[in-house]
Amino acid sequence: MKLQRAHAGALREAGILTDDDLANLQHGLDAIEREYGTAPCPASDAEDIHTWIESTLTERVGHAGRKIHTGRSRNDQVATLLKMYVIEAGEALSDDLESLIRTSCRRAKDWADLVFPLQTHNQFAAPGSVGFWALRHATAFDRVRRHLRFCVSHWRLRCPLGSGAVAGSSIPIDRRLQAEALGFEHPSRNALDSTTTRDECVELLALAAQVALHLQSFAADVIVFTQTPLGWTVYPRSFATGSSMMPNKSNPDAMELLRGECCAVVTAHGHALTLLKGLPGGYNRDLQCIKPLVHETVEKLTTLCRMAGAFLEQLDFDADRLAASLAQGGIGAALHMERKVLDGLALREAHHAVAAEVQQHGPSAVTADASDAARYRTSGGASPAEVRRIADEIQQELG
Amino acid sequence: MKLQRAHAGALREAGILTDDDLANLQHGLDAIEREYGTAPCPASDAEDIHTWIESTLTERVGHAGRKIHTGRSRNDQVATLLKMYVIEAGEALSDDLESLIRTSCRRAKDWADLVFPLQTHNQFAAPGSVGFWALRHATAFDRVRRHLRFCVSHWRLRCPLGSGAVAGSSIPIDRRLQAEALGFEHPSRNALDSTTTRDECVELLALAAQVALHLQSFAADVIVFTQTPLGWTVYPRSFATGSSMMPNKSNPDAMELLRGECCAVVTAHGHALTLLKGLPGGYNRDLQCIKPLVHETVEKLTTLCRMAGAFLEQLDFDADRLAASLAQGGIGAALHMERKVLDGLALREAHHAVAAEVQQHGPSAVTADASDAARYRTSGGASPAEVRRIADEIQQELG
Amino acid sequence: MKLQRAHAGALREAGILTDDDLANLQHGLDAIEREYGTAPCPASDAEDIHTWIESTLTERVGHAGRKIHTGRSRNDQVATLLKMYVIEAGEALSDDLESLIRTSCRRAKDWADLVFPLQTHNQFAAPGSVGFWALRHATAFDRVRRHLRFCVSHWRLRCPLGSGAVAGSSIPIDRRLQAEALGFEHPSRNALDSTTTRDECVELLALAAQVALHLQSFAADVIVFTQTPLGWTVYPRSFATGSSMMPNKSNPDAMELLRGECCAVVTAHGHALTLLKGLPGGYNRDLQCIKPLVHETVEKLTTLCRMAGAFLEQLDFDADRLAASLAQGGIGAALHMERKVLDGLALREAHHAVAAEVQQHGPSAVTADASDAARYRTSGGASPAEVRRIADEIQQELG
Amino acid sequence: MKLQRAHAGALREAGILTDDDLANLQHGLDAIEREYGTAPCPASDAEDIHTWIESTLTERVGHAGRKIHTGRSRNDQVATLLKMYVIEAGEALSDDLESLIRTSCRRAKDWADLVFPLQTHNQFAAPGSVGFWALRHATAFDRVRRHLRFCVSHWRLRCPLGSGAVAGSSIPIDRRLQAEALGFEHPSRNALDSTTTRDECVELLALAAQVALHLQSFAADVIVFTQTPLGWTVYPRSFATGSSMMPNKSNPDAMELLRGECCAVVTAHGHALTLLKGLPGGYNRDLQCIKPLVHETVEKLTTLCRMAGAFLEQLDFDADRLAASLAQGGIGAALHMERKVLDGLALREAHHAVAAEVQQHGPSAVTADASDAARYRTSGGASPAEVRRIADEIQQELG
Repeated sequence: MKLQRAHAGALREAGILTDDDLANLQHGLDAIEREYGTAPCPASDAEDIHTWIESTLTERVGHAGRKIHTGRSRNDQVATLLKMYVIEAGEALSDDLESLIRTSCRRAKDWADLVFPLQTHNQFAAPGSVGFWALRHATAFDRVRRHLRFCVSHWRLRCPLGSGAVAGSSIPIDRRLQAEALGFEHPSRNALDSTTTRDECVELLALAAQVALHLQSFAADVIVFTQTPLGWTVYPRSFATGSSMMPNKSNPDAMELLRGECCAVVTAHGHALTLLKGLPGGYNRDLQCIKPLVHETVEKLTTLCRMAGAFLEQLDFDADRLAASLAQGGIGAALHMERKVLDGLALREAHHAVAAEVQQHGPSAVTADASDAARYRTSGGASPAEVRRIADEIQQELG
Repeated sequence: MKLQRAHAGALREAGILTDDDLANLQHGLDAIEREYGTAPCPASDAEDIHTWIESTLTERVGHAGRKIHTGRSRNDQVATLLKMYVIEAGEALSDDLESLIRTSCRRAKDWADLVFPLQTHNQFAAPGSVGFWALRHATAFDRVRRHLRFCVSHWRLRCPLGSGAVAGSSIPIDRRLQAEALGFEHPSRNALDSTTTRDECVELLALAAQVALHLQSFAADVIVFTQTPLGWTVYPRSFATGSSMMPNKSNPDAMELLRGECCAVVTAHGHALTLLKGLPGGYNRDLQCIKPLVHETVEKLTTLCRMAGAFLEQLDFDADRLAASLAQGGIGAALHMERKVLDGLALREAHHAVAAEVQQHGPSAVTADASDAARYRTSGGASPAEVRRIADEIQQELG
Repeated sequence: MKLQRAHAGALREAGILTDDDLANLQHGLDAIEREYGTAPCPASDAEDIHTWIESTLTERVGHAGRKIHTGRSRNDQVATLLKMYVIEAGEALSDDLESLIRTSCRRAKDWADLVFPLQTHNQFAAPGSVGFWALRHATAFDRVRRHLRFCVSHWRLRCPLGSGAVAGSSIPIDRRLQAEALGFEHPSRNALDSTTTRDECVELLALAAQVALHLQSFAADVIVFTQTPLGWTVYPRSFATGSSMMPNKSNPDAMELLRGECCAVVTAHGHALTLLKGLPGGYNRDLQCIKPLVHETVEKLTTLCRMAGAFLEQLDFDADRLAASLAQGGIGAALHMERKVLDGLALREAHHAVAAEVQQHGPSAVTADASDAARYRTSGGASPAEVRRIADEIQQELG
Repeated sequence: MKLQRAHAGALREAGILTDDDLANLQHGLDAIEREYGTAPCPASDAEDIHTWIESTLTERVGHAGRKIHTGRSRNDQVATLLKMYVIEAGEALSDDLESLIRTSCRRAKDWADLVFPLQTHNQFAAPGSVGFWALRHATAFDRVRRHLRFCVSHWRLRCPLGSGAVAGSSIPIDRRLQAEALGFEHPSRNALDSTTTRDECVELLALAAQVALHLQSFAADVIVFTQTPLGWTVYPRSFATGSSMMPNKSNPDAMELLRGECCAVVTAHGHALTLLKGLPGGYNRDLQCIKPLVHETVEKLTTLCRMAGAFLEQLDFDADRLAASLAQGGIGAALHMERKVLDGLALREAHHAVAAEVQQHGPSAVTADASDAARYRTSGGASPAEVRRIADEIQQELG
């Protein structure tokens, strides 16, 4: 409807509509909006919703209705409406990410002093704060959020409306008026490109895939932390399922579903690329197939983001089990080696010395305890203080 | 080497290296650089290039060499080097796009007055300038170029170096010094995230896919323009191949190969996502598999961009065949209808009137001639003057 | 329900159920089937449909209901039900392909004498029968159908039921009875593999992708045949859409939608692979996400196959326009050259001779007429007689 | 060369070549084969290898060389050669799978009595034999091998040679002779389909993806078994790498690389589909891009299969650590429950009873010991005896 109004305004300016026409159309649009606002689209013989609006307008306001489609085409209309949807979805996703980042930062501070074995290669590697782990996800989501913010402004740069079917129009419509009325900065620069491209969909889907990749990685982490015999998490029961055959089991089903459902979002981008590949220039009806793909992907991702946030709120950790794990895997080795370096040994010599100790006495020679995490002194490191500092910094940036 | 120097500088600052150590290391690095600069990596028993550099340094400068790996890990080293490669590749790709945009704009102006039938749905649709078509591709490439420029700055925001294996280090290294020395704005915020993520690779590959999608669309257009019986192009012979069985044929092979080769670039993003899916947090060796993927994709895309540019320089059009096509498909219909609107008819009535004419007299009632393209009056439209204006505008923005 | 009965039979055989238990369970299952047969699943607190059936059975038949889940798990149940669905879907798809092949063969014979320019590289290449083109699609679909027939028998080889949660069961159930009752040849060989694998889904999706690839290729052909200025098809109006801005146009929207919708089917296989990648062995809940993917893909593909068949029934060709095109592109060149070979020239000399003629007199020196298609003498070639022969052969094989 | 000889034979039969021509060509082909047999392709101005062979033949044997390309085209030649390559690659892959299956069966028997906790949902689930785990992979590979055997015979059904450029030929070549000489059953049925399709490549890539999916799943299992604190494997040192920063660590790099490298194979199928999507019917040069993709994928997969086999030979398990894990996770629960069933309780009651015990006394109430695995009595279950039986059965089937 916003698009109809923007177009009508430009038609008035171009002298195609009289003041009366414009007033009539606006009343007509108001009436349709009141009547159908949130209702599902009425059954009709019209080829599509756009044709239906035009004919309904004409029924209600007569002559002016027959003028509303002047200087435009379904091709530029659908391109514009889809771009507007993508912008809105991008903003909503940015909000969902913001909320997830806030939760992650809050939990990072809650868990800043809870020390456990960080892992690389699925091996215990070094002591670090559970909060540091939570902050990993805040950092990753925040990085994508910044990229997404750029993309929203990038999509707003150019408005397709006024591109007509493929070549523009001989009606002297001022496309700047339309662009501004619809929240864009400028009209687009090439009508053929504007009616052919779906770049904003591809870009949104690429970012959605990235978010989904991070979400499934979060889920994978939680599943690992929950596994036998680690049992580090106090896994929220409302996100678990029992076993029909094994009475001993409670399974992290919600996280497995999160990991699995993310794949629909991860692969939607490739679906869109396959769809667009090989198409001739200019509008082709195949382009309509990207609309449900974007809608479904956005809706699924929204659900998954919120589910991850709700889960993170309820997740807890078993401090005793975390502490017990610190004794395994010789995870104090690197800190032990660095102490020798700080005491004057060259790194490579310290490395050999510690390796020899491990060889002789086993990994238990270089265990860690919870206090060791405080020894990291680099920014972005795994010490409790640094976790708090970074979490605060990110929260403050979000405002 | 740049990374080695940046790290050595930070180690000096942290008191791990003496001034002498630093000078020795710098001489050692200079010598290695002189000797191996552009040569292929020497055969060696070392686990990887990083270990080789360390042991070679140690051979040459002794003690100081044993200190160079202090406070860092292969995990943060490879993450940093890969990110630096992605930044460089992003800048080079941006330059290649710029060059392609300049060529497209130049050709757009060369062909601004050459009018032909624009197509939608593989049907002749409306008269427009061939230059308008060339400008479509300039506009599309320019849009991706802007996004890429953002990404380069986005990747430069945070430097992974100093993240260590997973948790940072207890050696008080000033990561800001390292970041600045390597051209980044800040050190990264979470060592676990920094050693796990390959977001910059994923983002580069997403943009590469988008460029490749546009390139194959360009190729598909040229193939259509070259087809029997259109024969619109004067297809450059050095980009064609004859037929072994049909002496009558000369085939647009280079454009078919461009369309085909682009698919490797289009699908590399999905390959990377599949690779990253399901990995546990923290460094895993799988992450190394993304490196050759990014390298090969970047190199292929570079070749394809340059090939498209070289082709565009040599492409020409057959003005007579273009003009002959204007008489087909009734492509003057929309302009004819809009003339009735400008004369006072409501759009929908004008639409019916023209449809009736076409029904009665066939499409020949509404043919177009070359002068009709000048009638478009919207910005971004298919008229020769507008094509020139926009091409100039884009060129000026590139500076 | 079939699965419940098969399992109950095996439990009776194993001595877990008495004859009375078995009779009770069968009455209970009959009653549930009568009541809910085709109705949607009732609202319930049960964790899933399987748990609901068990508790409903228990409500109705008491004690015996509490025994039905003996020696099985949801893990082997869902694997078995999904495999049974895949087998059924494979058979239904095979039927749909068969029907499409029959239609294609029939149309091939209808159009066997309609000669037009076959294309390679989007260039007119050689005269051939339109029926020959229709037969291309019959041949391709028939090839996939054979592969699919194999897969259905391949899937029937091994029944997962009786694999339990992961390791089988200590209840001595005779899995051969279950397998036979459910239409499989043998029980599966490894319970861990049986509860982990979704190979049959992956294989069905791979074949579905191949069918979709052929369908979109069919659509792409029709779009090309319909384009301006060829206009070879009499495109069925009920599959077309007009233009809102260009009164001259009627667009092949249904074929564009077919080409576009196929991409959802083409990419579902990659979606499944991404989902399965990185999963640990043994059942994980992620596996459930493949079920809706397979369902939706199968349903979409069914619709698209039938749409293609319905379209093919209504498609027609414009004999005059086909004939007019024979004069273009010098498409008689290869036959002309081969005549010289049959007259005694070596092929390479004949090739040079014809190339020289084309160079001197243009492509019009080597045009074709409709009778030329009859000159092909190789099996599988483009002559009307061979098209009829092969179409008959394929139809006879289908029986 | 085989193709050249088959074609020459058919040309002799068709009367195009004399007996002398045929003898000359065969000598020429012998000479070329002797000279260039295993050497890389010589530098040349020829458009491609096929043209080079023709001109080299002509240099050496004169007139007969000019006849060799009669009745064929590069289009059917490349289709035939590629199909022959796919058949060979399919057979080689089948052999590699066979070898991997044999190794897996052998190891399954080696480890038949080694009992450990089988996992579902990353949780310890039930006791089972390590050999049972090895057998899972044998079973999976064997399933794909059967499918692959079918496909090889499926690809051999129809030979493309003799399809010419698109329509066959007017030279009366007996395509059955060609087909037989090249090891196919019949000539293909539609020349347009034969020169357009790459179905055999798509099918090989789909199967390759499935093999790669199983290989990465094998790798993922090993990584999990090797993780801290499980340490179940005695991970072969030649497949591991140390840590540059953490002297305590030895990482399962080879398995991570296997998991990562598999993704190139997993995604090649999608790459091929993207390449083929949107192509017009008839030969297009894009089709050549599938050749390197298939080659590289086959070579990578071969390497990965052999690496997995070599690794499996060297892998060992730590019996003490396996046994220690049996006490964790209450993994005897299901067997405990089934004992109650065998003693007369209904399953659901037994389930409640065991759940209550676990609730009251913790998982330690239902631990398992190594002897428990022998209690499974279903075929395909996790008992040592059944593992041996199935391993033998599979080995015998392979012959």
